[in-house]
Amino acid sequence: MAPPTPRLVVPVDLRKKPWEQKLALHNRWHPQIPPIAEVKVGELFRVEMVDWTGGVIRDDDSATDVKTIDLSTVHYLSGPIKVVDEKGVPAKPGDLLVVEICNLGPLPGDEWGYTATFDRENGGGFLTDHFPCATKAIWYFEGIYAYSPHIPGVRFPGLTHPGIIGTAPSMELLKIWNERERELEENGLQTLKLCEVLHSRPLANLPSTKGCLLGQIQEGTPEWEKIAVEAARTIPGRENGGNCDIKNLSRGSKIYLPVFVDGANFSTGDMHFSQGDGEVSFCGAIEMSGFLELKCEIIRGGMKEYLTPMGPTSLHVNPIFEIGPVEPRFSEWLVFEGISVDESGRQHYLDASVAYKRAVLNAIDYLSKFGYSKEQMYLLLSCCPCEGRISGIVDSPNAVATLAVPTAIFDQDIRPKTRIVPVGPRLVRNPDVLKCTYDGNLPTTKNPGATT
Amino acid sequence: MAPPTPRLVVPVDLRKKPWEQKLALHNRWHPQIPPIAEVKVGELFRVEMVDWTGGVIRDDDSATDVKTIDLSTVHYLSGPIKVVDEKGVPAKPGDLLVVEICNLGPLPGDEWGYTATFDRENGGGFLTDHFPCATKAIWYFEGIYAYSPHIPGVRFPGLTHPGIIGTAPSMELLKIWNERERELEENGLQTLKLCEVLHSRPLANLPSTKGCLLGQIQEGTPEWEKIAVEAARTIPGRENGGNCDIKNLSRGSKIYLPVFVDGANFSTGDMHFSQGDGEVSFCGAIEMSGFLELKCEIIRGGMKEYLTPMGPTSLHVNPIFEIGPVEPRFSEWLVFEGISVDESGRQHYLDASVAYKRAVLNAIDYLSKFGYSKEQMYLLLSCCPCEGRISGIVDSPNAVATLAVPTAIFDQDIRPKTRIVPVGPRLVRNPDVLKCTYDGNLPTTKNPGATT
Amino acid sequence: MAPPTPRLVVPVDLRKKPWEQKLALHNRWHPQIPPIAEVKVGELFRVEMVDWTGGVIRDDDSATDVKTIDLSTVHYLSGPIKVVDEKGVPAKPGDLLVVEICNLGPLPGDEWGYTATFDRENGGGFLTDHFPCATKAIWYFEGIYAYSPHIPGVRFPGLTHPGIIGTAPSMELLKIWNERERELEENGLQTLKLCEVLHSRPLANLPSTKGCLLGQIQEGTPEWEKIAVEAARTIPGRENGGNCDIKNLSRGSKIYLPVFVDGANFSTGDMHFSQGDGEVSFCGAIEMSGFLELKCEIIRGGMKEYLTPMGPTSLHVNPIFEIGPVEPRFSEWLVFEGISVDESGRQHYLDASVAYKRAVLNAIDYLSKFGYSKEQMYLLLSCCPCEGRISGIVDSPNAVATLAVPTAIFDQDIRPKTRIVPVGPRLVRNPDVLKCTYDGNLPTTKNPGATT
Amino acid sequence: MAPPTPRLVVPVDLRKKPWEQKLALHNRWHPQIPPIAEVKVGELFRVEMVDWTGGVIRDDDSATDVKTIDLSTVHYLSGPIKVVDEKGVPAKPGDLLVVEICNLGPLPGDEWGYTATFDRENGGGFLTDHFPCATKAIWYFEGIYAYSPHIPGVRFPGLTHPGIIGTAPSMELLKIWNERERELEENGLQTLKLCEVLHSRPLANLPSTKGCLLGQIQEGTPEWEKIAVEAARTIPGRENGGNCDIKNLSRGSKIYLPVFVDGANFSTGDMHFSQGDGEVSFCGAIEMSGFLELKCEIIRGGMKEYLTPMGPTSLHVNPIFEIGPVEPRFSEWLVFEGISVDESGRQHYLDASVAYKRAVLNAIDYLSKFGYSKEQMYLLLSCCPCEGRISGIVDSPNAVATLAVPTAIFDQDIRPKTRIVPVGPRLVRNPDVLKCTYDGNLPTTKNPGATT
Repeated sequence: MAPPTPRLVVPVDLRKKPWEQKLALHNRWHPQIPPIAEVKVGELFRVEMVDWTGGVIRDDDSATDVKTIDLSTVHYLSGPIKVVDEKGVPAKPGDLLVVEICNLGPLPGDEWGYTATFDRENGGGFLTDHFPCATKAIWYFEGIYAYSPHIPGVRFPGLTHPGIIGTAPSMELLKIWNERERELEENGLQTLKLCEVLHSRPLANLPSTKGCLLGQIQEGTPEWEKIAVEAARTIPGRENGGNCDIKNLSRGSKIYLPVFVDGANFSTGDMHFSQGDGEVSFCGAIEMSGFLELKCEIIRGGMKEYLTPMGPTSLHVNPIFEIGPVEPRFSEWLVFEGISVDESGRQHYLDASVAYKRAVLNAIDYLSKFGYSKEQMYLLLSCCPCEGRISGIVDSPNAVATLAVPTAIFDQDIRPKTRIVPVGPRLVRNPDVLKCTYDGNLPTTKNPGATT
Repeated sequence: MAPPTPRLVVPVDLRKKPWEQKLALHNRWHPQIPPIAEVKVGELFRVEMVDWTGGVIRDDDSATDVKTIDLSTVHYLSGPIKVVDEKGVPAKPGDLLVVEICNLGPLPGDEWGYTATFDRENGGGFLTDHFPCATKAIWYFEGIYAYSPHIPGVRFPGLTHPGIIGTAPSMELLKIWNERERELEENGLQTLKLCEVLHSRPLANLPSTKGCLLGQIQEGTPEWEKIAVEAARTIPGRENGGNCDIKNLSRGSKIYLPVFVDGANFSTGDMHFSQGDGEVSFCGAIEMSGFLELKCEIIRGGMKEYLTPMGPTSLHVNPIFEIGPVEPRFSEWLVFEGISVDESGRQHYLDASVAYKRAVLNAIDYLSKFGYSKEQMYLLLSCCPCEGRISGIVDSPNAVATLAVPTAIFDQDIRPKTRIVPVGPRLVRNPDVLKCTYDGNLPTTKNPGATT
Repeated sequence: MAPPTPRLVVPVDLRKKPWEQKLALHNRWHPQIPPIAEVKVGELFRVEMVDWTGGVIRDDDSATDVKTIDLSTVHYLSGPIKVVDEKGVPAKPGDLLVVEICNLGPLPGDEWGYTATFDRENGGGFLTDHFPCATKAIWYFEGIYAYSPHIPGVRFPGLTHPGIIGTAPSMELLKIWNERERELEENGLQTLKLCEVLHSRPLANLPSTKGCLLGQIQEGTPEWEKIAVEAARTIPGRENGGNCDIKNLSRGSKIYLPVFVDGANFSTGDMHFSQGDGEVSFCGAIEMSGFLELKCEIIRGGMKEYLTPMGPTSLHVNPIFEIGPVEPRFSEWLVFEGISVDESGRQHYLDASVAYKRAVLNAIDYLSKFGYSKEQMYLLLSCCPCEGRISGIVDSPNAVATLAVPTAIFDQDIRPKTRIVPVGPRLVRNPDVLKCTYDGNLPTTKNPGATT
Repeated sequence: MAPPTPRLVVPVDLRKKPWEQKLALHNRWHPQIPPIAEVKVGELFRVEMVDWTGGVIRDDDSATDVKTIDLSTVHYLSGPIKVVDEKGVPAKPGDLLVVEICNLGPLPGDEWGYTATFDRENGGGFLTDHFPCATKAIWYFEGIYAYSPHIPGVRFPGLTHPGIIGTAPSMELLKIWNERERELEENGLQTLKLCEVLHSRPLANLPSTKGCLLGQIQEGTPEWEKIAVEAARTIPGRENGGNCDIKNLSRGSKIYLPVFVDGANFSTGDMHFSQGDGEVSFCGAIEMSGFLELKCEIIRGGMKEYLTPMGPTSLHVNPIFEIGPVEPRFSEWLVFEGISVDESGRQHYLDASVAYKRAVLNAIDYLSKFGYSKEQMYLLLSCCPCEGRISGIVDSPNAVATLAVPTAIFDQDIRPKTRIVPVGPRLVRNPDVLKCTYDGNLPTTKNPGATT
């Protein structure tokens, strides 16, 4: 007889706030957040998720919600989920937790998403010095396809995936995170040249009691107070996986996660209908609520067997991923290149981040020649299925990074043409993205050569 | 009637040295290196190339040639080739030169290649602080496949491509290059944190008369003396294209190159039978001699029409690439992740180079569990068709970079297994790569957690 | 603001029989079956479907339901659906109806399917002379994957699609169908050699009042009596589309259907989780209930503009299909070949059906060497994503047909090995498919050379 | 040290006739044609081939050579090649010969090919009743791409492959072939309905001394006289492989051939730059001269181990193929469907050949709406990388066959459009194919509905 339909272990109700859900969500990493569900290896189960902001960004005609968002609250995650073997024995530290993504998608009745850039003084993004304003584009889904009224002439199939999946850290690992990130936050601006090219601030997102949600642990209790001051933010990916943003982590993928606490206690969230490599605009995928259908295995002792620590302790590991066999076929790609020379003409040393910034800027400028605003293209390259590659990382002093854009997502031929240069006005793609003003005082990086 | 077979415009004779070729090769970028051939738009022509070292690395049983190589001589390029339109009018500065790669391959009778890492004190590589010794693996070709006696159990189809294709710079552009690279070379060590993680030295490769080859311009002449002191090295990719190392730039690709001098005067070389994204071991593709069959078009005024300068002058542009429709199908990929925390545990700020270093180290350590030495895997990941992606570049403080390895290139299943951990000795893959001693004094980066 | 979730225009309740549904289903093609829903071009709508037998085949431990099925009742279709343009004007005969499949899947809570062969005297199948017994395999779904307890060691991602989608025929077209099929049924056995090789009977499925379901038209009414005797069976594909069984007709596909009656009145059903080209076992896909999310366009006058009649009247056309961009990547395929020589050694003339029969028989015999029964492989090749090609159709007297099987669906390496032939018993894949006895008297085709 | 470049075991000189080659070619299958080369398992070797007509079809402005060709002379094959193991022991009957295609291509200096249809009374083709005239299109190669001055607006990458590869038959197998084909030739027209739909004549190509070439065996000798009367023609594929026309049999493919005589004695030829499934115009691929680089293995006893006889004797087997990992990526396909109703409106029973004929006719008519003549499209669909599938073979009475055409090979969008039907003359694609008159008396099949 058929096994039952995937068991729903974490339901969400989109009419409720993240802290009102039947099984309370959380937005921090900490070993003492208690699991809200338990699953057995081999069983197929279903996890539902709110979007990463828990409903703050709305399907409306303004980007004000983006501009004024309280980022101390992201990301709202579903979990932790405890994993046990056939005999009921939990996963143990040192094991490897295998999570297979059997299915996923938007939540029925909520088939829309958004892509946005934050205001430079409230979140920013990869190119925030060029694009300091908060902007927003809404996407609607037609099955596998997404289209946006704010970026006309573009439609593409999504390679849907969870942005975040990770296990709970141990106290020891948490301490490592907090120390190294605090050191960066405190001293980075003085010591790091990259901060002169990448302008997202703060440099690191340290623990904050503000906005902290810890699942079943009630705010204001001593336990909450203790945990809230040390629980790690979910913004960066780390040793436990977390915010990996691997765009191909779709149906059929497997994630091999290190286990740091009894039960593994993994959480997931930040569903993306689609994302480009790098997720450059920061709120950069097509962000949505959604569901996952998952199946777990435990490889006993697998962390030692398969993962090699890379750093001072045996906890300095990274998960391994096996991407799934289903993805959209694209036959033609246009590839934009960047080298590690920044917009001021300054030479950097093998810096792939600088090179990628230039590649993305090149792509935006190029594509905006086809009737788009640069803001439209910035958001598009953040969420469409484009590939960001480190092509060369050894040829001093230039790293070469490339951004490959599938041409089929446009309704026009975007390749350079070997013919008389067209004259007269081009087709203008209206309307534009939703946009706020930038009221800050930081200077915008101007590209002297670019047409405005 | 059929058009003639592709016209051979640059022949090479592998029994001769680069400077002895009938049409002399060159190894510098400079506007005054005279073209050695002229082609018309639309015609199919053939260019032959020596390997990037001009035959210094040999198919023998020692890595001594790698250790002692004089890197002032690389890369030997075929060209410059002047391009004219149907009426004989040359490409002009401001045009876009379109080069289509119709076919390519090894030179008949020379179907072999090599992958190597340089000694830390003579060239190094992306991981030179971990692997300071010169090493070498020889690859033999069986049609589309390559296999190496030094890395048993691996065989894969090549996605063959030229590592270098670029147009001649103008004097103005050349001056920009030399100034910015000199500034880096002189001040970089003091100001750049990345230099504490990436250890290739020198930081930049400035012009050198040593090893300089300038085509038809005879060494020792006043003209040679003048050009040699200012001609740019070919190591890094720059605004003219050059050493792009885009692994998918194979049959059917088109390159849209900016034109800086009359005739475009493009050169090409550094043929790769196969390369992984990043080309991490530096001498890192399967390096070989080879041929290209090309066809050119000129887009008049296309540089202004399609490329947007990104920097202080209108010359700060990058080429665009359209990759070809033919590549090996791989259905399964294992993906290794790195975050921007270095081996000492120190946190870096959104640094994709640091993250990629960790991803590659993770992959090497993982794969070496399957019977290989780490040196074998370092060379393999440099030349096999693996993909290096910038997955997340906005989640402060961690950049997430990933390295995806197609599992089908191995003759064993390299995925983690959900079963009893195997005991006893694993299969050892012998023989190993060819290896020299490291006689320098710089410390090796040790990974405390790794098994030796 | 977001458009509403796809409007559900045809709901089904799996606890009810096909004739008990709120919007009654139908199982015949006839212009006078009234539409049960109306949709506008551009709107996204959802259609639910029972499995093709309307629930007769059960998830149990016996194939008796398959053996005793009343095939006069298949296929139960959802529809007809009337299509109108933005102004409410219906599609007209001579138009082309474009149906885009935006999404599809199993019905939530009913994630299972079955593959079966009928008894030779009640339906048969492509190889019924070799396999006269009714057999059945149950498949369970884990997201995109299907696995069967009856065919162990196999798991594959589905390329889910509707087996049937078609417009209502006009009376004139219906008359053409009935006449030509009656002629075949009456005279075919005497005139067609192919009947000596393919043994499914009857040759054609003529109209039958038995089992006839006509939507809202009540059985027993004069209208029902009139229509039931002339309404066409849904078994074969015809000019209106219908049972096309195109395995790649999945997400993102478009179907361009000729319109024969006002409103187009299209129906759909026969959902397949996965199917191999040819659907050889007849009940041959992974049959299931399911849903489609669709979007329609009307190309006015498009039937004349784009479809060329091929036959005595302007109605002798066929639809056109545009397959979607998403499918599982398989890198390795084993290809079995057949030529148009039948099992008795008799030569046929360029007969692709005979050649394909031999190719499928070859594949079954080959794969059964890896521990499977032939019945297991017959069902597998019917439903797994294998490709059936007409490779050569001009080299008299042999047509060459091929069957390509993706090797990755097996958990063992099924390729021939260049090594010592293994001895001793092979791994036996148990349990086997569910199987009934064959109680008929027709002889089984024996393959003298086959083992067992 | 590197292994030597592939050893050239069968050279051809295109300035010489097939019978003048240093190692004489052959155009018949017979066990007593002596091998002209010997290769060892594991060694990489090279075989050169003339085009299948041995140079009769020329790159000129007339199709007269096609009309008047003497088809008794085709196909000219390179071989037989004897295969021995490491110890020099030849392959034995009952073994399986594994041939890996490591590389292939046109012969340097001869980069062109042709596609043609024969006159209805001298060869014909799949649609000869519709297209009775001899026609010809010339193709020129630009690396991986082919284009034709006779079919403007089309350019595509080739999936190059040998049309023919096969082992020598034993006398017993040869006798089986001759008997069954003679039986067909003598009685087929009376008994086979398919002959009323497919009009290629003769039904089978029986042995003929006319045009017979037997390698080293001199014409006129008693040995020649004996062999020539019984040697099988190479037109059809058979148990030994031979004319398989598998379009994906390109670089990286492996062929598992049964061995019937000592040494296997395999031959190969009929190189195709590209072919569509079915090769419908008969002279239907892009026919060319070419080379193969091959590597052999012997699986001792593998014929019994892996191939199951399907017919009266143990010789009734078919080879197995493993297709290679490299093929052009196409993301969009337009699929044309045919059912087994012929052009007169007559119903056939599950006949895939009839269905495929209709699918191809549908595709020709559709595509000719885009400015092409039907003859242009007939030749194009024969040689471009289109896929011919048997989609449904069980839904009595209609077989469903489909022809999928990659849209990217055209320089215009060939999909049906949802917009105002264009009026006025369309773009005419000139010039047309080369064409002869048809001087025979057989009636042309007219399609009443088609525009002329």
